Amino acid sequence: MDRGALGEGKMLQGSLDSSGPRFTPLVVVELASDTKEEAIAWILSRIRDQQQNGGVHVGVDPLNSKISFDCVFYHSVLLILAFFPGAELLVEQLGPGVGAQEKENPNMFLVGATRQRLLSGAEEVGLFKECNDGSMRGFTCANKHNFKDFEGDGDSFLNMAECQYIIKHELDTLRAKDETHVPGHTQVKLYPGKSIIRRLQSKGILIQIFPLHGQEELKRLSFSWYKKVKLSFQPLDNIRHYYGEGQALYFGFLEYFTFALVPMALIGVPYYLFDWEDYDKYVIFAVFNLVWCTVILELWKRFSASLAYRWGTLSRKKAFEEPRPGFHGTLGFNPVTGRKEPLYPNAKRQLRVYLVSLPFVLLCLYLSLYIMMIYFQMEGWVLSFHDEEPTFWTGILMFIPSIIYAVVIEIMNLIYRYAAEFLTEWENHRLESSYQNHLVLKVLVFNFFNCFASLFYIAFVMQDMVLLRQSLATLLITSQILNQFMEAFLPYWLQRRRNKKMIRKVQKRRTVEEKELPLAEQVRLEADMSTYLGTFDDYLELFLLFGYVSLFSCTYPLAAVLVVLNNVTEVYSDAFKMCRVFKRPFSDPAANIGVWQLAFEAMSVIAIVTNCALIGMSPQVKAYFTESETQLILWTVAIEHMLLAFKFILTFLIPDVPKHIQIKLARLEFESLEALKKKKMLEASDLSKTME
Amino acid sequence: MDRGALGEGKMLQGSLDSSGPRFTPLVVVELASDTKEEAIAWILSRIRDQQQNGGVHVGVDPLNSKISFDCVFYHSVLLILAFFPGAELLVEQLGPGVGAQEKENPNMFLVGATRQRLLSGAEEVGLFKECNDGSMRGFTCANKHNFKDFEGDGDSFLNMAECQYIIKHELDTLRAKDETHVPGHTQVKLYPGKSIIRRLQSKGILIQIFPLHGQEELKRLSFSWYKKVKLSFQPLDNIRHYYGEGQALYFGFLEYFTFALVPMALIGVPYYLFDWEDYDKYVIFAVFNLVWCTVILELWKRFSASLAYRWGTLSRKKAFEEPRPGFHGTLGFNPVTGRKEPLYPNAKRQLRVYLVSLPFVLLCLYLSLYIMMIYFQMEGWVLSFHDEEPTFWTGILMFIPSIIYAVVIEIMNLIYRYAAEFLTEWENHRLESSYQNHLVLKVLVFNFFNCFASLFYIAFVMQDMVLLRQSLATLLITSQILNQFMEAFLPYWLQRRRNKKMIRKVQKRRTVEEKELPLAEQVRLEADMSTYLGTFDDYLELFLLFGYVSLFSCTYPLAAVLVVLNNVTEVYSDAFKMCRVFKRPFSDPAANIGVWQLAFEAMSVIAIVTNCALIGMSPQVKAYFTESETQLILWTVAIEHMLLAFKFILTFLIPDVPKHIQIKLARLEFESLEALKKKKMLEASDLSKTME
Repeated sequence: MDRGALGEGKMLQGSLDSSGPRFTPLVVVELASDTKEEAIAWILSRIRDQQQNGGVHVGVDPLNSKISFDCVFYHSVLLILAFFPGAELLVEQLGPGVGAQEKENPNMFLVGATRQRLLSGAEEVGLFKECNDGSMRGFTCANKHNFKDFEGDGDSFLNMAECQYIIKHELDTLRAKDETHVPGHTQVKLYPGKSIIRRLQSKGILIQIFPLHGQEELKRLSFSWYKKVKLSFQPLDNIRHYYGEGQALYFGFLEYFTFALVPMALIGVPYYLFDWEDYDKYVIFAVFNLVWCTVILELWKRFSASLAYRWGTLSRKKAFEEPRPGFHGTLGFNPVTGRKEPLYPNAKRQLRVYLVSLPFVLLCLYLSLYIMMIYFQMEGWVLSFHDEEPTFWTGILMFIPSIIYAVVIEIMNLIYRYAAEFLTEWENHRLESSYQNHLVLKVLVFNFFNCFASLFYIAFVMQDMVLLRQSLATLLITSQILNQFMEAFLPYWLQRRRNKKMIRKVQKRRTVEEKELPLAEQVRLEADMSTYLGTFDDYLELFLLFGYVSLFSCTYPLAAVLVVLNNVTEVYSDAFKMCRVFKRPFSDPAANIGVWQLAFEAMSVIAIVTNCALIGMSPQVKAYFTESETQLILWTVAIEHMLLAFKFILTFLIPDVPKHIQIKLARLEFESLEALKKKKMLEASDLSKTME
Repeated sequence: MDRGALGEGKMLQGSLDSSGPRFTPLVVVELASDTKEEAIAWILSRIRDQQQNGGVHVGVDPLNSKISFDCVFYHSVLLILAFFPGAELLVEQLGPGVGAQEKENPNMFLVGATRQRLLSGAEEVGLFKECNDGSMRGFTCANKHNFKDFEGDGDSFLNMAECQYIIKHELDTLRAKDETHVPGHTQVKLYPGKSIIRRLQSKGILIQIFPLHGQEELKRLSFSWYKKVKLSFQPLDNIRHYYGEGQALYFGFLEYFTFALVPMALIGVPYYLFDWEDYDKYVIFAVFNLVWCTVILELWKRFSASLAYRWGTLSRKKAFEEPRPGFHGTLGFNPVTGRKEPLYPNAKRQLRVYLVSLPFVLLCLYLSLYIMMIYFQMEGWVLSFHDEEPTFWTGILMFIPSIIYAVVIEIMNLIYRYAAEFLTEWENHRLESSYQNHLVLKVLVFNFFNCFASLFYIAFVMQDMVLLRQSLATLLITSQILNQFMEAFLPYWLQRRRNKKMIRKVQKRRTVEEKELPLAEQVRLEADMSTYLGTFDDYLELFLLFGYVSLFSCTYPLAAVLVVLNNVTEVYSDAFKMCRVFKRPFSDPAANIGVWQLAFEAMSVIAIVTNCALIGMSPQVKAYFTESETQLILWTVAIEHMLLAFKFILTFLIPDVPKHIQIKLARLEFESLEALKKKKMLEASDLSKTME
């Protein structure tokens, strides 16, 4: 048996003491403290068992006798189920902590794997790695020596995040065979072919499963990321190395967006300095915005494709999507896989979406508009108060309604977010991706309304550019302050308190020199950290900021400057919270920013319409059409339509993937086609030989 | 050797006489009459040679020593080249005709194949066929008995069009090995790995290659298609069976479009009868148009996917696209395949597109506008003439400018078409698909301008609804009459003359009873028929008709009726010309109507904008906004934007592929993923066993 100390995993070995496991621990599995002994033994044996244990006999499969499909091809599917008896991983219980208390959960397990197992796992999950010729190819054990950085036994070939992803995949695909329930827990039923881990998780036996931080690498990463003082790009490759592609793409997008804003900020500053009291000269700025928001999104697609290609996720095939853990329904056979699983009629889900969720969202939008009207009443009231008796204090009072409104917006967004999550959960989507899409749509529409409705009202109904500028500034600044506070300082402060308690506890028993925590303590410390809930909120924040700058920044040229400042601090606070506040997340092999690209593009279409309207309303343009307002509007509309058409044509013309990457992808595809052809030719000639 | 009488191919055997070949002829290859003897012998031997002749040695490949790539994977590609020495087909020279004349080309060859060869070819081209369980899967020889309709040796499994497609594919993929030039023609150079047939074709040695008609099946098809008197759907499955999926999809679309127009025609007739003089009541009709053009295109996508699934082209993978025959450039190595082929810098092509083609198109558009203005001058002149002295003859004179303009438009379209083809050819596109896209774009933009610019001018600049109605009617009727004449009657008449001459010639030597022509005569007759140039012009005609009805039909409700009538005659004339006027085309395994779907959707967006504008201009709507024209325009624009947004959301929400087909596709994909996983598992376990 190979002891396997793979790549970055080595980092942890320094902190291994006698109570640690005999392998590099990568992932922690925490079971409920009241889990029965038999259940634990069964789970551990399933994790440890060899992959081939179950044999290749079709006869052993219980599904075989139950389902009868017309097509003989189906047997190949049934056959495969018998292939998943064990994950062939290494697993050990975590020793008790130093200051072991009664309430400490003893059922914490460390999972690792041999180097050989990880490599075959890398092939299974379809990992793409760089070859010696610089192209990216799916890793196969047979061709391992053709890959760059594969030296000797391949010790440092896979990085820690990849190893953890592989282990997660192996655990997730552990499927029930002929067990009808979890041993010791008769109420937790199992169905052949279904994921055991998901079942345990949804029934509360599995509390959590998370990857361990690599202390050494984390220290190096955090140093190059946010502890350095000198200005530089983020270490995207290192971030990807440590957190996976999904995270790295978010930080890449954040950085890209910040740099894209710099020209706008540079134009904005002189505008602000020299034209502050001249509200009318925003036409050029609006034209700039128009072009800007189309161009940066197109360029981002290409940049994102380059990143994804370099990281090997661009051409990686998606695995078959399993139902999400919370999905429920009456048992039946999935028409695609033929496996027994809960089914939920699509019509019922549609009814829930269109008869409950949609009216609810509309109601919330109405409520949001209602609150907006209250805000305008307050605004009017304060204004009349100020006009009656203008003092310094009433001048400050002028800002109060906007600030209150900004706070109320944030609170409403927060409450609505919970409601949207609840509703989307209740809609009972089968796939995680479909759940995410519905959630994003709900949240986006409401947040858009909530944040921008008042600005649209001021701009196009009240047509008051001074108020628009003032509202925009207040909204932007207030929401930024709130966000930074809620997102970084609050969680950090909570975490810091918890950390200190733990360190104090450990130091009771240890000498002061040993600054590194022992493994058992480290694991328990990480288990107590908050769980990172994905990039949703981060992207949402960027989306709203993008809205502020692309929609109305021509009336308040400092907006871009504020957003740039916000983004710079955002990089630091996000980096900090990823490294210090949250548990390490499992890496997510994303090839792009997904549904957010669509959301940003929808916003850029709205930005074109809005900016055209603002231009049409500007006194400068109006001066050209003194005789006829109709002419002015018709021209504005005509130009707007041309711009929209031009935008769509541009989207169509600019290839989403840079040429040199297209060539590399085409080469891969060509090779696989040729290989397939060659294989078929060989088979055909074999066949004809036997027939002759 | 198997004599092989596959499927529909049997039909021909009735007409085989002693001079015919000893197999079912499927495809005819005509070489130039001055081709050298050695060249003919070499070509025939390459067509006949066994596939494995060249051996599997990498060493024999001349490329191997020339190219050195960093990556070892490349060897697999080089290996494959050695696999294509012969096509293993059957080929024989066509005997002399009955009234053999000197000018008759002796170098006509009939190509066929054994049943076994066709089946292995079907696997090679990736043909999808229906399985016993009703699903569509890629045909493999190993699983042949799982396929529906595979009985005995599989005699009637492949239809004639499929066999011809397979033979075409095999001939196309005949690649040069170590020959440097065509024997006997030293000026015709060959490069290893390049298609021989394409080379011969571009150098004029190969005059044409076409599939033979199946007389019996053609008779049955034409009877059920256009000779029946009773109204019924077209026999789409039979059309696909005989002409392939591309043709069948065109006729399917033509039929679908006609039926989609019926409700509009039904609304149009009462409108026409009761509101003829009331030009203002078109608002409801315009609203109907708005919804109609979005809905029918969405539904067509789903219908088309159902057809393509049933015909097995929906999930079929595209083969690697070879450069088109006319493509030229300096010799180099293709970065994707590594093969020696002409390269042409992309930048140079872009320059040609943007610096020559684009200005040319713009110039043509300007010319078209100029002619339009002349037309309006003529129109004004005739009107003043009529007003001065109104008689019956001046009333008829009123229509003359429109008719002249319609004829001029058709002529300009025709001339421009040639120019566009020349320019696109000159742009030197590497792929046929890219060539087609550029050609379609050029032709579409010009035809759209040419046909609709005058209508837009009348509607929105002159705002003269009476003239709009009159122009629309004249344009529609004139272009229909011209089209039907140019498309069907003229070619038919020419063909009929040629046929009669041939029959008279044969009858000189034969008795009158034998009505069927002998094979040799039949082949020569078909070789003389015109070549069908694809569905381009047919789709273009439908596109313009779609434009007439969706853009302006609300002002002339009879338009839909006229188009329905046109389409019904179009079905008959197109069916007739396919069956009697043209050579049989090779089948084209299309999964959808391709770039035309996009063109129709672009038209439907323009239709929404146009109809909204027409509604806003209608007196009924204007009556509501008597006090302010600005209000009217703003409302129109707002509603138009909402409709456009709604259209895009609808396009996004309605799945392009019906649910039940999505499930079947997902099942196929799932199975292939699982099979891959299983294969990898087996390999991995083999590997680990060897290592233990």
